[in-house]
Amino acid sequence: DPSAPADPAEAEEFLRLCYTEQPRLGPVEPRLAAVRAQIAATGTYTHTSEELTWGAKVAWRNASRCIGRLYWRSLTVLDRRKARTADEIFSLLVRHLDVAGGGSALRPVISVFAPAVPGRPYARVWNEQLIRYAGYRTEAGIVGDPRYVSFTDAMHAMGWRGRGGPFDVLPVVVETPDEAPRLFELPEQAVLEVPIAHPELSWFERLGLRWHAVPAISNMRLRVGGVDYPLAPFNGWYMGTEIGARNLADPDRYNLLPIVASGLGLDTSHEATLWRDRALVELNRAVLWSFERAGVKITDHHTESSRFLAHMRNEEKAGRPVPADWTWIVPPMSGGATPVFHRYYHEADQRPNFYLDSEAAS
Amino acid sequence: DPSAPADPAEAEEFLRLCYTEQPRLGPVEPRLAAVRAQIAATGTYTHTSEELTWGAKVAWRNASRCIGRLYWRSLTVLDRRKARTADEIFSLLVRHLDVAGGGSALRPVISVFAPAVPGRPYARVWNEQLIRYAGYRTEAGIVGDPRYVSFTDAMHAMGWRGRGGPFDVLPVVVETPDEAPRLFELPEQAVLEVPIAHPELSWFERLGLRWHAVPAISNMRLRVGGVDYPLAPFNGWYMGTEIGARNLADPDRYNLLPIVASGLGLDTSHEATLWRDRALVELNRAVLWSFERAGVKITDHHTESSRFLAHMRNEEKAGRPVPADWTWIVPPMSGGATPVFHRYYHEADQRPNFYLDSEAAS
Ligand code: HEM
Ligand code: HEM
Repeated sequence: DPSAPADPAEAEEFLRLCYTEQPRLGPVEPRLAAVRAQIAATGTYTHTSEELTWGAKVAWRNASRCIGRLYWRSLTVLDRRKARTADEIFSLLVRHLDVAGGGSALRPVISVFAPAVPGRPYARVWNEQLIRYAGYRTEAGIVGDPRYVSFTDAMHAMGWRGRGGPFDVLPVVVETPDEAPRLFELPEQAVLEVPIAHPELSWFERLGLRWHAVPAISNMRLRVGGVDYPLAPFNGWYMGTEIGARNLADPDRYNLLPIVASGLGLDTSHEATLWRDRALVELNRAVLWSFERAGVKITDHHTESSRFLAHMRNEEKAGRPVPADWTWIVPPMSGGATPVFHRYYHEADQRPNFYLDSEAAS
Repeated sequence: DPSAPADPAEAEEFLRLCYTEQPRLGPVEPRLAAVRAQIAATGTYTHTSEELTWGAKVAWRNASRCIGRLYWRSLTVLDRRKARTADEIFSLLVRHLDVAGGGSALRPVISVFAPAVPGRPYARVWNEQLIRYAGYRTEAGIVGDPRYVSFTDAMHAMGWRGRGGPFDVLPVVVETPDEAPRLFELPEQAVLEVPIAHPELSWFERLGLRWHAVPAISNMRLRVGGVDYPLAPFNGWYMGTEIGARNLADPDRYNLLPIVASGLGLDTSHEATLWRDRALVELNRAVLWSFERAGVKITDHHTESSRFLAHMRNEEKAGRPVPADWTWIVPPMSGGATPVFHRYYHEADQRPNFYLDSEAAS
């Protein structure tokens, strides 16, 4: 609960872990005493920038749904706690995308904005991800991403006018305590996109598909040592299946399997021809191949599965349990053909971590 | 625990459910009194054949890992509680396979042998499934199914001699309280098999693959109303992925993806070509197509996913929760392309049910 005072027990647990794992920070006791006093006096406390950096990295390390955690130490943490106005915040979001994807050598980045202070409203971004495509209701059906139809409707109600295309980047809505929600258009150069073609099938390119290079989740709350950061957008790079087996494939998203199957000339009259599976593979090949062609970093689900198991070995060697959620770690295609399928994981809510407030605690 | 007395509370709960769901059985109270008395006197009680039949069906209905539960009412229950000797048991197992698969119109069947009686040893079958293939350690590597190498070793130690081929049906080992474990060879006509070819790729047939038609699990304990049936083999028909995405594909099983990929001429030098995924799809197309060609019932994971959701709707209409384990219900390939992927399930250990005793309770 971002409006509650910082929990002193969680603060202590965090600080002990942080100072133990990083001996160069010195003894934790004096710091603990200071933090206890600050919580008693103000209901919260302020992380040093080392604590914040380490906290964000460990939140990633603890993200039990994330297969990409091998790289957790490499997170770039941008300390944006001083930003207050919507203008400041938006320009730092643009800066985030620039650090993350400037020059197409993608980097994992998190921008941490001001923490929630008990009893006071806080700034947030309405978008699920910084870059997402609009979805328009039309008489011929939905154009664009069906997932964002109501978000797009809300943008329209606030005066935005989309071009009505299938891949129109949505505006970013920044809400601060002092200003009404404000819409901002991302500058073109902040939004790296990749047109999707297929290594062999020339008609594929004519489908006119594209996807953005940087998945930057902007609606999760970062919780570090009992303190909530309601605005802390983060990004890694894509695993191909997120685009090819979910965003472009899910029936309630771009729903492209029937279209790709028809391009492939498959018999879709009964399921046992496995036309869905064949279309799915070609769509995913196209995604991976297109990103590679464009020189934009992406990973495939086989490689990433092995890396995740390497991460588990590293962590176990360091004596740390690796909480993991099988249903998210196992990729949405060819699950059984990836090594992450064939084992159990330990599930746990370890902190620091990321939370989605609209989601029921599970 | 099959050696403990029947649990009167579990017996009562079962009987109440059984008589409520089937009003034609009459009032439960007299039956409850009789069962309570029988448990008090003997430590257990005897199911009527109607109770047994209904109990087995509901055990299937409660099998949270099974996607095929739409058909739960259609289970044929063979009451084999009187069988005592290994010869009798084995001939009834052969009869089971005959009822299940005679004439290739597969039927879901369970054969329920004698219940465990507190403090007394009971009959069992050593095999995981009635029909499985041997695995031989050779200098050139394992021939056959690697999963059954130690079982095959044990068979050898007991005097069996396999032909050393990749698809040799294992003998069935029946152990009764009065006899040492005995090996039986299944007669050829009890083992329906399907040679695997591909609808388009002529070289596929030359891989010499085959699989048995009937998956008959023989190592799970059926527990009905507090009574354990340690030997209660059951079968349905296959969902293609069990063969094509697990038995023939898993690295620690027949591991055929590299071989199929090489037949397809795929570039296996890096994962992003998705050669595993492409080989997986063709292998699974081959399995489904071959079973259909042979007129042997099989289902695909798309069709079965929709049927499972229909089952959930039926059950919910009847006011019954459907316990389900996402990690087992979602198929091992193209998970995200099946409707069962996109929801949560309620997990619960509802009884009657099937249990694997070697497995840690979870
Ligand atoms: C570096 C490359 C990365 C890869 C390849 C990667 C991969 C993934 C994938 C495939 C998912 C599942 C997404 C889905 O199915 O919707 C996921 C989820 C997640 N990842 Fe990562 N990730 C990366 C970086 C990061 C970073 C930098 C963070 C945070 C600092 C992070 C935190 C998370 C969290 C919190 C989730 C769960 C999201 C949710 O609940 O919706 N990941 N990741
Ligand atoms: C009629 C057609 C049937 C189909 C298509 C079907 C499908 C499946 C599938 C795909 C699995 C997962 C197997 C795996 O991944 O290893 C499964 C598991 C299971 N099924 Fe079914 N099934 C059928 C009939 C039955 C019957 C007749 C019963 C019992 C009376 C049953 C009880 C179970 C149980 C207990 C499991 C879990 C096995 C374990 O824990 O290893 N199923 N089923």
